[in-house]
Amino acid sequence: MVEEYLAARREMVESYLEAYLKARARELPQTLHQAIAYALEGGKRLRPILVLAAAEALGGDAEEVLPTAGAFELFHTYSLIHDDLPALDDADLRRDQLTVHRVFGEAAALLAGDALIPLGFELIAKEQARISPEDRVLRVIGLVSEALGPAGMVGGQLLELEERFADPEALEEIYSKKTAALLGAATAAGAVLTGGGEGEVTALHRFGLCLGLAYQLIDDLLDLGEDEGPTYVHLVGEREGREEAERLTGEALQALASLGNGAANLRALARWLLSRRS
Amino acid sequence: MVEEYLAARREMVESYLEAYLKARARELPQTLHQAIAYALEGGKRLRPILVLAAAEALGGDAEEVLPTAGAFELFHTYSLIHDDLPALDDADLRRDQLTVHRVFGEAAALLAGDALIPLGFELIAKEQARISPEDRVLRVIGLVSEALGPAGMVGGQLLELEERFADPEALEEIYSKKTAALLGAATAAGAVLTGGGEGEVTALHRFGLCLGLAYQLIDDLLDLGEDEGPTYVHLVGEREGREEAERLTGEALQALASLGNGAANLRALARWLLSRRS
Repeated sequence: MVEEYLAARREMVESYLEAYLKARARELPQTLHQAIAYALEGGKRLRPILVLAAAEALGGDAEEVLPTAGAFELFHTYSLIHDDLPALDDADLRRDQLTVHRVFGEAAALLAGDALIPLGFELIAKEQARISPEDRVLRVIGLVSEALGPAGMVGGQLLELEERFADPEALEEIYSKKTAALLGAATAAGAVLTGGGEGEVTALHRFGLCLGLAYQLIDDLLDLGEDEGPTYVHLVGEREGREEAERLTGEALQALASLGNGAANLRALARWLLSRRS
Repeated sequence: MVEEYLAARREMVESYLEAYLKARARELPQTLHQAIAYALEGGKRLRPILVLAAAEALGGDAEEVLPTAGAFELFHTYSLIHDDLPALDDADLRRDQLTVHRVFGEAAALLAGDALIPLGFELIAKEQARISPEDRVLRVIGLVSEALGPAGMVGGQLLELEERFADPEALEEIYSKKTAALLGAATAAGAVLTGGGEGEVTALHRFGLCLGLAYQLIDDLLDLGEDEGPTYVHLVGEREGREEAERLTGEALQALASLGNGAANLRALARWLLSRRS
């Protein structure tokens, strides 16, 4: 069952990150270490699981891409900490607990987010480089920086701030930068590290991008009760929003058409995300 | 004269960054592009010049390390934008103009800083990788992430927040993380990219670290009139502060003892920084 697969992979990622941060604890100022550990609590670990599952889809070993998988969780966590800051969403709760700035103060939250970005790059450039060929690791760093940067996630966050009265197309553009870019980079990274051919890398990248868009629409549907400003689903209505999420999930599955049975977990994951209730 | 060398190298770095950002302008949301361009105005370009001068000290070509040099200026600029935010220094002026958050708002300033980090890594992982061997580029990414991360710059910023009544030794530890780590990574990166041997890389790394500490002490001395909380110089007095900056500059020069005449510009730069009046 996909739930068991997800639980096993989540456990792998969490053990890896816990051991890694513990090994580095002595180098880090205590507050920074505590704030980072706190921010990492909870979470579905979707992005790292996508790295692992993409590698496995091409016959690779999940263990061998763990440093990069862990880095994706660090990048995602940085984005949550900064998103929650008073200057942006001013959120009190995240992952069922108080936000980092509510517990450690705004300055420490800003710096904890800032610290997670180079920490993620360091994981890839040093730990992944012990396992994988240099050209693949460098390509992954290129993919990740593009997905995180002004043409990717940060660009999407800024557009979201500015487009208060956007149309559905503009919102889909925002979602593809803000959310889908990093998910696409995750599946592409798993494929690149496993030595996938160009066709396979493109297919898995595309899968992650479509899945990321679908994921964001499902988030919109699940948050319909809460009033957090216009979302894609607010603009097109619940029924059309769900249809679009289904269409995008279909497109994600279509991208995997040329891959064999190794991609079964990725396919199951896409269907599971579409049906999720939280 | 060292001033002419510095002006020529500063011009190289600025032209490179200007052309690079112009080429990427279409991909970036306009506000983000404007905020980044604004934040990059002014500045001595010390860190990128250290990358170039370290490469030249080993007989390398400054042109061939420009992407990495540019990346160091992006990293430094991110740190200034975030340092100036209300959650940290709450500064109104930087590089003789209003701070980024005073012009573009706090949210855009936070995101512009966030964007500069992956943009810098992308410059190294893609543009530097077109010029230099993959193993050297990866090693530079490792060096840079360590210098930027929780054991480096961000760690120093956090310690500075917490140590309101520090002793001189604790402050020197903070300075070495907050300021010197990135300068040391800059000279080490120039050496690594130019194919320096381990002894040369270590010597140039050490040069940058000592120079960085001296640089911060000179900053303290120049800021003595302003009342911005205790600095090393406040604690030990002006005379002892200047002596320590001189001692560290001597240590930096000592690190270059085994290098030949190629390091003349680096030596002149160290002496020039010690005598600077602004």
